[in-house]
Amino acid sequence: MNEITIQTSTNQYDVMIGKGLRHQILDFSPKLYSQVLIITDSNVEPLYLADVIEAVKDAYPVSYSVVPAGEGSKSIQMYYDLMTDAIETGLDRKSLIIALGGGMIGDLAGFVAATFMRGIDFIQVPTTILAHDSSVGGKVAINHPEGKNLIGNFYPPVAVIYDVETLHTLSDREVRSGYAEVVKHSLIHSSSFWDQINQIELTESLNEEALTDVLLKGIKVKAEVVEQDERESNIRQFLNFGHTLGHALESELGYGTITHGEAIAIGMLFAIRVSEKTYQIELPYQEVYKWFLKNDYPLQLPNLSIDKLIDRMRRDKKSNNQIVTMVLLKNIGEPTIEKLDEQKLHVWLKDFIQELNRH
Amino acid sequence: MNEITIQTSTNQYDVMIGKGLRHQILDFSPKLYSQVLIITDSNVEPLYLADVIEAVKDAYPVSYSVVPAGEGSKSIQMYYDLMTDAIETGLDRKSLIIALGGGMIGDLAGFVAATFMRGIDFIQVPTTILAHDSSVGGKVAINHPEGKNLIGNFYPPVAVIYDVETLHTLSDREVRSGYAEVVKHSLIHSSSFWDQINQIELTESLNEEALTDVLLKGIKVKAEVVEQDERESNIRQFLNFGHTLGHALESELGYGTITHGEAIAIGMLFAIRVSEKTYQIELPYQEVYKWFLKNDYPLQLPNLSIDKLIDRMRRDKKSNNQIVTMVLLKNIGEPTIEKLDEQKLHVWLKDFIQELNRH
Repeated sequence: MNEITIQTSTNQYDVMIGKGLRHQILDFSPKLYSQVLIITDSNVEPLYLADVIEAVKDAYPVSYSVVPAGEGSKSIQMYYDLMTDAIETGLDRKSLIIALGGGMIGDLAGFVAATFMRGIDFIQVPTTILAHDSSVGGKVAINHPEGKNLIGNFYPPVAVIYDVETLHTLSDREVRSGYAEVVKHSLIHSSSFWDQINQIELTESLNEEALTDVLLKGIKVKAEVVEQDERESNIRQFLNFGHTLGHALESELGYGTITHGEAIAIGMLFAIRVSEKTYQIELPYQEVYKWFLKNDYPLQLPNLSIDKLIDRMRRDKKSNNQIVTMVLLKNIGEPTIEKLDEQKLHVWLKDFIQELNRH
Repeated sequence: MNEITIQTSTNQYDVMIGKGLRHQILDFSPKLYSQVLIITDSNVEPLYLADVIEAVKDAYPVSYSVVPAGEGSKSIQMYYDLMTDAIETGLDRKSLIIALGGGMIGDLAGFVAATFMRGIDFIQVPTTILAHDSSVGGKVAINHPEGKNLIGNFYPPVAVIYDVETLHTLSDREVRSGYAEVVKHSLIHSSSFWDQINQIELTESLNEEALTDVLLKGIKVKAEVVEQDERESNIRQFLNFGHTLGHALESELGYGTITHGEAIAIGMLFAIRVSEKTYQIELPYQEVYKWFLKNDYPLQLPNLSIDKLIDRMRRDKKSNNQIVTMVLLKNIGEPTIEKLDEQKLHVWLKDFIQELNRH
């Protein structure tokens, strides 16, 4: 088992990564609780809910809520229904919520924990590769039809318990979605990390040792950044590399049509192109493009309104005074933040989508 | 003008109390913003909204949202509508929300600020006596049909700007409601503070000097407590004196039927009775009762189910493992926290309501 400790402004918590940890959740729980509510989704329920219930039921009264799988559940209605569940099942301030699932569940259950009676403890038990990113850093949120994660808190879990066995049940699409964030961590971190990722074929990569290594590296990159800037006032924004266009694509296409990872894969390619144009440099666009291509990321887009996409990008949380702000690269491992001229952006985005669709 | 600085776990903010401060809001704003959204209610709008707009409009783009007056607006639907307003008006992370109104507005607008893009700055501009309590201490929340303030955060404002001129427009009922929290602060603080309050006739008390003095004292009591225990793990619960039954009455009678202050006035009387019985002591119940009576607090209750009230009290945020927990007094100025036997509580509550209604 591997362990990484994350410092927050007010606290610290451990990320445990290992085989079969879902059976030992209480070994990593930092204190005693009055009761446990497990929140999970309809994909994860048949696979791992029974294991987690088994692991806590002798110590605490336990109840659970299952929401439909998919980003659509990060809605105000689902949030409110979970609050009602929590109240009706008798949760109090000394109770614990376990978020069992991928990033959607971590965000949704985390926001329930953050705001139930003004905040109770929660433990993340991620079951996707994507969640290596979202489970670290304390961001919790739900979506608004006008944009992703617009309603939320900074609210760290008391522990992250990452059972790599649960990753075997991921579909290829989920593996791809998760690896996109690993690619992001590598591109903002260093050439050597990117070179390592560039060797990986996703179809072969799921042996536990290699996977644990990549997850550990990704989590460390993320931890380093969030420890320096928990509330995203400056460098934490680097983690948004690929996300400005990525989020806009997710909203515009409709959550669920495209996975988060597929969207930010395209977002990163665009950010690399914008970086090349802004700084008049050459970056390994083709290398990154080819890696996504060989690993079957969908890299073509339907007919979209450039104006609407830019309008969404303008409403991104990084933007300020309605000016589109993107994370760019001066080199692999050298992220920067830039405000962009909207007219140029319009041309670049149009060209970029045409370029993608020509292939 | 008087000023009190409140320390929080991560920050500090100032409470300014004085005449006409609503015209000078930006003088007390700690930094620059991209845009301002004022959230107020239908009672306050015709009285003070124009003044506040006037005070900020030269410095920033300003927009406003008006919600219906009354506790009913602390709902998930109103919260969500305000989020939509904030997004549509183009608020970003560098924007400011001004909560112009009483406790309801502070709680609601504060929770919007706490969760909009994971938290933006907000300034409280209280316009009621009751808000001397709610505007200090960083509690923000909305209600759930199952209980008050069940959904919320600890999220302090960046400043509280208390213009005592705005208190002249309060109805007698609002004055009573606000003074109930002053009574609470006095009872948990000291005999001398209670003796001072005991001299006051509410109909005469609204001269600005006396009022400022009482508000300052109340705010200081509150600040002392919340600085020691921001997240209500122990002594902050003292501020819930009178609130266990008070909240249950508000929920059971329906928010708006009884004001918050009227409910906690009855809740305090009950807490005094329970204290007397639990500790076998005598407290100035009659003195407090007479003060409420002479100041026209409604002290009779309709026919209510004792079981339902106790069920609500059990779901109070102080309770733990579903055991009703109340703040009691060992003496004036000596609050304690006790878990209560439900059978005894049932008898005492029934007797208490009968005693009230006999008068």
